[in-house]
Amino acid sequence: MTTYLCELAWLPPGRVASDVRIEVADGRIASVVEGASGGDDHAAGVDVQRLHGLVLPGLANAHSHAFHRALRGRTQSPADGRGSFWTWREQMYAVAGRLDPDTYLDLARATYGEMVLAGVTCVGEFHYLHHRPGGGEYDEPNAMGLALVQAARDAGLRIALLDTCYLTGGIGKPLEGVQLRFGDGDTEGWAARADALRAHEADDLVVGAAIHSVRAVPADQLAAVASWSPTAPLHVHVSEQQAENDQCRRAYGVTPTRLLHDHGVLGPRATAVHATRLGDEEVRLLGASSTSVCMCPTTERDLADGIGPARLLRDAGSPITLGSDSHAVVDLLEEARAVELDERLATGLRGAFTTAELLDAATRAGHTSLGFADAGVLAPGARADLVAVRLDSVRTAGGSVAEAADRVVFAATASDVTDVVVSGRRVVGDGHHLLLGDVARRLSGAIAAVS
Amino acid sequence: MTTYLCELAWLPPGRVASDVRIEVADGRIASVVEGASGGDDHAAGVDVQRLHGLVLPGLANAHSHAFHRALRGRTQSPADGRGSFWTWREQMYAVAGRLDPDTYLDLARATYGEMVLAGVTCVGEFHYLHHRPGGGEYDEPNAMGLALVQAARDAGLRIALLDTCYLTGGIGKPLEGVQLRFGDGDTEGWAARADALRAHEADDLVVGAAIHSVRAVPADQLAAVASWSPTAPLHVHVSEQQAENDQCRRAYGVTPTRLLHDHGVLGPRATAVHATRLGDEEVRLLGASSTSVCMCPTTERDLADGIGPARLLRDAGSPITLGSDSHAVVDLLEEARAVELDERLATGLRGAFTTAELLDAATRAGHTSLGFADAGVLAPGARADLVAVRLDSVRTAGGSVAEAADRVVFAATASDVTDVVVSGRRVVGDGHHLLLGDVARRLSGAIAAVS
Repeated sequence: MTTYLCELAWLPPGRVASDVRIEVADGRIASVVEGASGGDDHAAGVDVQRLHGLVLPGLANAHSHAFHRALRGRTQSPADGRGSFWTWREQMYAVAGRLDPDTYLDLARATYGEMVLAGVTCVGEFHYLHHRPGGGEYDEPNAMGLALVQAARDAGLRIALLDTCYLTGGIGKPLEGVQLRFGDGDTEGWAARADALRAHEADDLVVGAAIHSVRAVPADQLAAVASWSPTAPLHVHVSEQQAENDQCRRAYGVTPTRLLHDHGVLGPRATAVHATRLGDEEVRLLGASSTSVCMCPTTERDLADGIGPARLLRDAGSPITLGSDSHAVVDLLEEARAVELDERLATGLRGAFTTAELLDAATRAGHTSLGFADAGVLAPGARADLVAVRLDSVRTAGGSVAEAADRVVFAATASDVTDVVVSGRRVVGDGHHLLLGDVARRLSGAIAAVS
Repeated sequence: MTTYLCELAWLPPGRVASDVRIEVADGRIASVVEGASGGDDHAAGVDVQRLHGLVLPGLANAHSHAFHRALRGRTQSPADGRGSFWTWREQMYAVAGRLDPDTYLDLARATYGEMVLAGVTCVGEFHYLHHRPGGGEYDEPNAMGLALVQAARDAGLRIALLDTCYLTGGIGKPLEGVQLRFGDGDTEGWAARADALRAHEADDLVVGAAIHSVRAVPADQLAAVASWSPTAPLHVHVSEQQAENDQCRRAYGVTPTRLLHDHGVLGPRATAVHATRLGDEEVRLLGASSTSVCMCPTTERDLADGIGPARLLRDAGSPITLGSDSHAVVDLLEEARAVELDERLATGLRGAFTTAELLDAATRAGHTSLGFADAGVLAPGARADLVAVRLDSVRTAGGSVAEAADRVVFAATASDVTDVVVSGRRVVGDGHHLLLGDVARRLSGAIAAVS
């Protein structure tokens, strides 16, 4: 049993409470008591730890491509003039072509370490880099996926490994070049490998399914991926770029969202990632099916994707979740405020989302979309994920207790996260990763190895 | 004489150099030598200091309202539903109504302290809070402006005090409520007070003029402000909101930019702040007159202003500068990347601005627009402003020396600034403010005093 005495904590359904005592046993929250004095700090056999600032539930990073971290700051000033999502993709493929299970383990471990330092307690890894260069299987066909699982364990956070079906290099086009590493031939091949991976499921590992996009899985095979498991999370990139919409309409006569709907992909366990370029019907289809939408606004800025209709989607019925995706930035607080701030740019109005809604996206909704419905909230029975954010940095200082969450969401950065507990285990203390040590040095080495 | 040995430095016209020795005497850069060994570290009488990471020239924050820092995180979840720039302004006015010279000194000192920690070596303060509540003069008519000057000196950075003429509460409307504190009656009254302030000019203080906006200075008095000084910086808010454009067109039949042009406000020493909602003619007028444009993208996100046509303005001939304006965020690196990232959102393309252009906006162009044309570049004769940014944080780690500036602009945050030298004086060391001590505590106290 460990007792955490929190100066302030974010309690359901969405408010700041003072002097909160959270008792933890077996990785779960046993009790939450407000206004608790520190009187029995010294009760026999109880480990008492104080957490300063505002304690949030664990943050869920619902969309990650771990290896993209190697691209940070390397694609920004194209020597040959202006670029696009598609020219960026060529640079991304170059890194994808160089990874093997060992270098991927090192890179993902360091990337996940950066996430944990930012308060992330669970990552959804959208994983399609399955095979050897050229497409041949590794001796262990899930060597790459298992490297990601190991990386998450080493870094101290949970993982939803979203094993991604990626069969075509475009609608009606074969895989080519580095894409050969992504393919499993057909959905049976994909399912067999995913089944083997699922045998590894554990308390800290959920194996989910993913459809890379309507560009990468033919329409007549969408249902096979969707029905692989009736319970597992099911993620899919949707309408990040107009070109995808155009190709889909040319090939199938419908939008990507409509195509996914018609083949049974949408629903409460599904997450549409990006959902940037949508019309009214698509918003309605996603919302009415309770499909979650994962916004990745810092990546959507970086890749010039545009601003998705987050408020309309939420109003239509879609839970909003957040992902750092390409890891141009790893800061879920910045992702949370960016949903609201970019909505302001698009509409000219402030306050589309409340702070409570943005924190829900960053915590409970994200965890739920990754198959961890028992996490992301500070309540008895939930997984004991605690993230302490400083209120005494130059970014967060000033203002009232009642507005502490507003300051954290709108002004704090990942560097203000001081302490992180994941499933009852302290992983970050005073800004230091207690398992990995110098994460920056690990990042530097791992990136150099694949550059 | 002090010698700084820089691991990496950003040298003109825009490249990363290794092992750069910068010699400083009398607050100026005496010499810059690349590839310098540390061999004569111990030469007699020379103070040698090592700077790690990438050393940038000083950052210029070209648009600040210091007291807005008290609003951070306090206007984000409007209890009564969605808001706008105009409802935010009511909250801003409430703080403006409570300040006096003492509390303003404390608040501005702490705010400028936060800026210096972020690498800002010069602030352009757009200052209109001149008088007592109700509009009466202080015994010293420039008591508020002089408090800002003192605050900047205490915080260790230079200031361009842009003394702002604010005569009407809207076109054809008298000042009312807290606005009475802003007014000087007429341009003669404003000029007399500004003249008195200018008598205080010094090596670390430029006094410039500002026109609050076409809402606040009648058309027939614009020329009087513009001609107050033939050399001083002249700043003006332009077209931040569509409502301003609409009001201007109704009253005068032209756009704000056209009105300013017709009354002689535009030109090389002028800066149009925001310039968000512009048509083609306005871009042409600003560019052809070499008027600088100060983009404040984090504020323009926060206040739902929109995305200004930064690339078009630059191509038309306007230098781009950067400001943190409302201080929702104080991070010039974030402002720099936001210019490019928001352009991507608006256009669907990447790479409108190069990293060198963004750094120029943050450094040389900003300083020039504030009347410090001798700052913002690491070259002999320039003011000795040095800003060291870590390349070994989790945000900046990984990648090559050649791409160090890209990482700094696109991935570093203010928290990665470790050391700041302003006009040859070390003000920040290892992330600590050497003059003010605990800046966060100062912010907290100063904000509480006016809340």
